[in-house]
Amino acid sequence: MGFEVKIVEVGPRDGLQNERHPLPVALKTRLVDDLAASGLREIEAVSFVSERAVPQMASSAEVMAGIERGAGVRHRALVPNARGMAAALEAKVDEIAVFASASQTFSHHNINCDIDESFARFAPVIEMARASGIPVRGYLSCAFGCPYEGAVSDDMVVATTARLLEAGCYEVAVSDTIGIGGAGDVRRLLASLLADVEREKIALHFHDTRGQALANVLAGLDAGIRCFDSSVGGLGGCPYAPGATGNLATEELVYLLESLGVATGVDLTLLATAGLRISSALGKPAGSRIAQALLASGALDANAIRGVEASSPSGNTVGLPEKQKTGVQS
Amino acid sequence: MGFEVKIVEVGPRDGLQNERHPLPVALKTRLVDDLAASGLREIEAVSFVSERAVPQMASSAEVMAGIERGAGVRHRALVPNARGMAAALEAKVDEIAVFASASQTFSHHNINCDIDESFARFAPVIEMARASGIPVRGYLSCAFGCPYEGAVSDDMVVATTARLLEAGCYEVAVSDTIGIGGAGDVRRLLASLLADVEREKIALHFHDTRGQALANVLAGLDAGIRCFDSSVGGLGGCPYAPGATGNLATEELVYLLESLGVATGVDLTLLATAGLRISSALGKPAGSRIAQALLASGALDANAIRGVEASSPSGNTVGLPEKQKTGVQS
Repeated sequence: MGFEVKIVEVGPRDGLQNERHPLPVALKTRLVDDLAASGLREIEAVSFVSERAVPQMASSAEVMAGIERGAGVRHRALVPNARGMAAALEAKVDEIAVFASASQTFSHHNINCDIDESFARFAPVIEMARASGIPVRGYLSCAFGCPYEGAVSDDMVVATTARLLEAGCYEVAVSDTIGIGGAGDVRRLLASLLADVEREKIALHFHDTRGQALANVLAGLDAGIRCFDSSVGGLGGCPYAPGATGNLATEELVYLLESLGVATGVDLTLLATAGLRISSALGKPAGSRIAQALLASGALDANAIRGVEASSPSGNTVGLPEKQKTGVQS
Repeated sequence: MGFEVKIVEVGPRDGLQNERHPLPVALKTRLVDDLAASGLREIEAVSFVSERAVPQMASSAEVMAGIERGAGVRHRALVPNARGMAAALEAKVDEIAVFASASQTFSHHNINCDIDESFARFAPVIEMARASGIPVRGYLSCAFGCPYEGAVSDDMVVATTARLLEAGCYEVAVSDTIGIGGAGDVRRLLASLLADVEREKIALHFHDTRGQALANVLAGLDAGIRCFDSSVGGLGGCPYAPGATGNLATEELVYLLESLGVATGVDLTLLATAGLRISSALGKPAGSRIAQALLASGALDANAIRGVEASSPSGNTVGLPEKQKTGVQS
């Protein structure tokens, strides 16, 4: 198609923070390294938030110290305040992200302050990042709806996006925190946003709560957006609907982009294996349908998924299974 | 958006035929009636195929006799041969479908004859339908790829589609039997197809094996296609990858269309409840992410899902659950 798309992998951060249980450092570093090995180049690896508030994100310094750095991979961190920023600098992250909400009520519930206060809180973070030459991304949550307020006005989304850019963010990830938007909503909101904001400064971040995430990406691509967030294995969830589907699965985003002729540089088998390994560690089923299909067709190595190097010469990898006799297929 | 879209619900046929176990007649009739009650108007309810070949589709005559007819709902049947057509006429179906493959090897594996023979086989079916004034739809399987041959040429898809129309089908459901196509493939194939065939005669039938189905629908809509197949709860599967995801879930299709301003007339809660009821009877988890989200948020009545009329005044329906404390949401 003659264009490039940036995939921001948020599984280790947005994905794991929504899991019930904290994971050992070794599993988290393995996940980040697996994702890099699959070809992903932008990985939000950790967040430097209060361990008391978000125990899943404890040990972020150890994770950053344990992963392989360099090799063209940029490791990012979510940072809520100056204290977190000091830790992020210490860990030598390549990029940070701050966050604001398009909904006052959500802001209060999520981070215990209103939108103005949230901007005041991360102003010193952006100052510190600038002094160290570290790019700052902004997340705008509840851009398609709020679990408390319901509808969120386009005007509020446009104004808060512009405010994040003015505050020093180079890009805003317009985020459907509760996975409520459909492709029509994406088109309408982008029409408003792109009237005021350059499209290069907009990224889209979808949750697959209602199965709309990938169609939303296509609507975004058609509107000229070139940066999308996703999470390996669809890691994550919706804290307002426990048990619901998580983030857009990176595997499915990669598949869509490749079908559109956009080279991602990602090895889908390695990526799916990384997703199955972490899902397995979390005791969850395969979170992406591509991983399910690869697993079902026997195309993945079960030993690799368990994190054990395959030693048996026969292995666990099998070919296309015999057709099940279930009749006429359409 | 100023246009209408036809949804063809294929869950009772394409969905259930891929399930491992045959279901009792009462469950099948309940499913068909539930789907009609949710507002769906085109339902492929049964297939009159050999019970020996497809035991899941046994008792199609009893199912047709047991369901509520009329009320603006058109009940369709898949019919492979003259014998099946006689049964379909006896059951007074509103429409029938015949099928052909775009892949010779698949045709042999699926129905034990080559493509020419398959056309010869259903010629009398179309003749009988015409004599009775019953519309005939065609399915074209493997339009995006074949589990045996791999790639299928656009030329073959275009030629076989045209041949189905010439044979007497009013419409061809161009089907991605193995769920291999992405939105780019849809665009490319439709560009070829629409050069030769009127777009009103093309429907699209996607399986969600790789999570691409809904994005594929959006690509189809953008190309002017106005008829899509789907399956409540994503019922079905891929016989070439047992355990993989099934058909596009009707719930997710309805959600997309409504977001685009296309009125479907479908009540999503009734539809999701119908899907959960059949999934529960099959011992499967919720097959659509919308049903998962509704279930997780407590918005569905657990008694209704079990098929038991709720009697407790407190009920099982609860509101938005308290937020889980999992940290900063984007």
